[in-house]
Amino acid sequence: MTTVFNDPTQFAQDMLAGFCRLHADTVEPVTGGAIRATETPEGKVAVVIGGGSGHYPAFVGWVGPGMADGAVVGNVFSSPSTQQVHAVATAAERGGGVFLSYGNYAGDVLNFDLAQERLITDGIPTKTVVVSDDITSASTEERHKRRGTAGDLVVFKIAGAAAEAGYDLDGVVEVAERANDATFSFAVAFAGCTLPGDSEPLFTVPAGRMGVGMGVHGEPGIGEQDVLPASELATMLVDKLLTERPEGATRAAVLVNGLGGTKYEEMFVLWNSVAPLLDEAGVEMVAPEVGELITSLDMTGVSLTLFWLDPELEELWLAPAQTPGFRRGAAVATTRRTRTATDAAADTSFPPASEASQASAQRLVEIGTRLAAVLHEHEEEFGKLDAIAGDGDHGRGMTNGADAALNALTAAVNAGAGVASALAAAGDAWGDRAGGTSGALWGAGLRAAAGALSDEEAPSGAAVRAAVRAALDQLLSYGKAERGDKTMLDALIPFTEALEQDDRDLSAAWSAAADIATEHAQATADLTPRIGRARPLAERSIGHPDPGAVSLALVMRTAAP
Amino acid sequence: MTTVFNDPTQFAQDMLAGFCRLHADTVEPVTGGAIRATETPEGKVAVVIGGGSGHYPAFVGWVGPGMADGAVVGNVFSSPSTQQVHAVATAAERGGGVFLSYGNYAGDVLNFDLAQERLITDGIPTKTVVVSDDITSASTEERHKRRGTAGDLVVFKIAGAAAEAGYDLDGVVEVAERANDATFSFAVAFAGCTLPGDSEPLFTVPAGRMGVGMGVHGEPGIGEQDVLPASELATMLVDKLLTERPEGATRAAVLVNGLGGTKYEEMFVLWNSVAPLLDEAGVEMVAPEVGELITSLDMTGVSLTLFWLDPELEELWLAPAQTPGFRRGAAVATTRRTRTATDAAADTSFPPASEASQASAQRLVEIGTRLAAVLHEHEEEFGKLDAIAGDGDHGRGMTNGADAALNALTAAVNAGAGVASALAAAGDAWGDRAGGTSGALWGAGLRAAAGALSDEEAPSGAAVRAAVRAALDQLLSYGKAERGDKTMLDALIPFTEALEQDDRDLSAAWSAAADIATEHAQATADLTPRIGRARPLAERSIGHPDPGAVSLALVMRTAAP
Repeated sequence: MTTVFNDPTQFAQDMLAGFCRLHADTVEPVTGGAIRATETPEGKVAVVIGGGSGHYPAFVGWVGPGMADGAVVGNVFSSPSTQQVHAVATAAERGGGVFLSYGNYAGDVLNFDLAQERLITDGIPTKTVVVSDDITSASTEERHKRRGTAGDLVVFKIAGAAAEAGYDLDGVVEVAERANDATFSFAVAFAGCTLPGDSEPLFTVPAGRMGVGMGVHGEPGIGEQDVLPASELATMLVDKLLTERPEGATRAAVLVNGLGGTKYEEMFVLWNSVAPLLDEAGVEMVAPEVGELITSLDMTGVSLTLFWLDPELEELWLAPAQTPGFRRGAAVATTRRTRTATDAAADTSFPPASEASQASAQRLVEIGTRLAAVLHEHEEEFGKLDAIAGDGDHGRGMTNGADAALNALTAAVNAGAGVASALAAAGDAWGDRAGGTSGALWGAGLRAAAGALSDEEAPSGAAVRAAVRAALDQLLSYGKAERGDKTMLDALIPFTEALEQDDRDLSAAWSAAADIATEHAQATADLTPRIGRARPLAERSIGHPDPGAVSLALVMRTAAP
Repeated sequence: MTTVFNDPTQFAQDMLAGFCRLHADTVEPVTGGAIRATETPEGKVAVVIGGGSGHYPAFVGWVGPGMADGAVVGNVFSSPSTQQVHAVATAAERGGGVFLSYGNYAGDVLNFDLAQERLITDGIPTKTVVVSDDITSASTEERHKRRGTAGDLVVFKIAGAAAEAGYDLDGVVEVAERANDATFSFAVAFAGCTLPGDSEPLFTVPAGRMGVGMGVHGEPGIGEQDVLPASELATMLVDKLLTERPEGATRAAVLVNGLGGTKYEEMFVLWNSVAPLLDEAGVEMVAPEVGELITSLDMTGVSLTLFWLDPELEELWLAPAQTPGFRRGAAVATTRRTRTATDAAADTSFPPASEASQASAQRLVEIGTRLAAVLHEHEEEFGKLDAIAGDGDHGRGMTNGADAALNALTAAVNAGAGVASALAAAGDAWGDRAGGTSGALWGAGLRAAAGALSDEEAPSGAAVRAAVRAALDQLLSYGKAERGDKTMLDALIPFTEALEQDDRDLSAAWSAAADIATEHAQATADLTPRIGRARPLAERSIGHPDPGAVSLALVMRTAAP
């Protein structure tokens, strides 16, 4: 959906005006589009690119040193007029002739060709390279009929770098044609885009399906199929593009392009599968680009481009460029770090421990094993209870936490850890893997409890009571809740107090305290949450006990020593 | 919709792996997130930022010189765990202490605070500034309760620049707090985002409505209202933010942030309204940023941020930075151009013309006036005819073209142009404003016709016949169609031939030729288009004449001299 606009018929002009206003140091509006606002050497070939609007950063985002001298800005998804092309080229030219380049669409070809004729009539030498990289739009035999897509960036970058380096017009044409011949793209689309002022998308793709080989304006592709997982999508794109790999080609610039509605995170996920596949195929990737390069408003979809390099093209591809939408080169000098990063989590050694403390740690493994089993039994129940007023993930959070804690405990015991270190490791693992606020609090509580124990001796009853109190104090300090707020504290506070006040042996006192905790957990049904819930959800929870309090009571019952 | 993923539970990890693979020269993955891969001076304060995933370029996109030393990467829209924060901070620290910063959300506060406590226990001095810039989420009195949104970029940039400049930990905290206190954001959302693996969006906004003051995870805002035109939206955002303008503040960094599904073009349109409003309010804008800064997957919506500067903050805001998602500083040195751009379209002078040729040009104005009136009468009819197998814009294209041509003719005649120059100007205007392929061809044809006339004398019958032939030749050369392809050529070719073969005076010959063109235009009903139409559309047009041929015949009938 395109939502932010004034008069939809003025969208392209308003966009251009805002863009030029924002980047006034770099670009200047002229009739038909924009040109560089910066000094350009006399006699330099003027690289003039363009096309319809709606493809940002293509095309006006690429005006600046190392790329284009000017961009012609048509209406949304429409070719600019002959007059626009002529006006921008006339404003951009610096005595070295004009190099025109754009994606291969009938309207653009017509208008750029007519403008070229007029420029030549004006006495301005003008030549054109049309970008045709979309392999699904025509066969290799009809290469010139292929549409121009993300390959635009490749050809414009190469031509821009060549012109900046002082190539003459024929020289720019030669490398740009070579770049175009070496560039191959393949796109899939998941959903259509909506033009400013329209309420329906330009085209639709059924949910869960994708259009294969669609053009940047929704032009028909070569088929439609179910959406694939990212790794299979990567395989499909890479395999297809490698069928047109030139003989002997090994080094390639690679582009993953998002069509607008597909986010950077998704493109990074895709790249994580694309790069290893290209590695395996012996492709050396040079300065790859992953991002929104040539978009189609809010269309969702991605394309992959391979641009096979020779030494000259590689040098031009790597040359500096500084435009609002594409930059190459360092603004800050850096050196690759040689020292190895300290990875705190990779440190698995434990302080020396007494045999007694190691034996207590072993007891923790037994408790942890019991606990994990019991929590798995109750996972669904806790999930349902949490879904009444929350996001329903409490059961999963508790089992994730308990499983991770058990693994950490086992590893710690095998590494000879004492009870304090083993419990700290368990708390870390719980907090790290359980997720959510309750996971963090469980982790912090277990870790605080560990701080009251030692690796030198088996914990006394007093030490265990102190550990429980330390955990409670930690939760009170970080959880921002109090007793009566309908949280796990409504079970933990009575448990702790009962355990402290019961001077029987630890086992008897613990079991009694666990019974008390269970009663209090059930009694939270009468409470209304006071924090962390929107009002309707808070009210919905009345009559149901708090899942955090219930699960804590269950843990205490199960963990009885 | 989030479409590209493998296992949705591994989305954040896959994203991070792909990101680090792509930017291996800049960042290095560590447990819990990523740190710089480049050398960092011993003793520098380590700036560690973070939060949930799904907000790219926030947060991992901001690791690099001038910004963060490390980013903690939680699951999608979830706080990272205490252990993750601790691990990344430990890997990033260089002996100067750790500065933690993140947006104000309960889960993040809990986990970063717990991690800070552990870092201090480890002997690493650690301090925190929590970003709280969203003015709709709490009152000025409860500033610390405000959520963190695009203000993240401000605070991280300031802290990053200060740390890079050698500020100590207290110094970094001081400027970061000052920056946070001076930063105010306001957001609207048009539609919700969909988490990886989910089929329904996290929240919805009714079509045509917008949520006002919503948070970056769809947190409830302060209201809902109809979507506004861009200029009114700008007024709403600017006015609201200016209510919290600090006394005497004049210079501000300004951010327009897109939430993911709102495109750059839309943000430029918005900027085109925001900047003048701030200008009027006496706000001097310093290095504004318009783009996707902190996104929410594919959520559509925008936010505006004002960051009020003092000299120290301005220097830090402008300091160089080089990260995958934010760059400041030049990779290529440039100078602002001093020469004025040649604006071809601004040149409205005409070559000297004879009185006879000027009189003929005046005749063209009369013909143009008639033509525009007749085409407006037929606009709807041509639109309907075109809609049968095309996009229905032919009527509008012809009236736009004729109106623009008439304006240009009138201006040319008023400026003393001869008939050749006046017709060329008319052709340019038609081609520039009519739009579409037929507009470009009409413009090119009229211009070619003008080339067969002169500004020295009134056109003879032979000259007019030559002009028509020149127009036809131009269309044959650029239009890629032939007779019988069901285009305007099916009327223009018989018209031209009849005119050339009829040796009566021009007026009689022209009228007869126009009748012949009309017959041929109607006869195109029997043809099937051979170019530029998909097959079902081509078939649908059988039995209906070609709108381009019919309109051409009408123009010829109306233009009879």
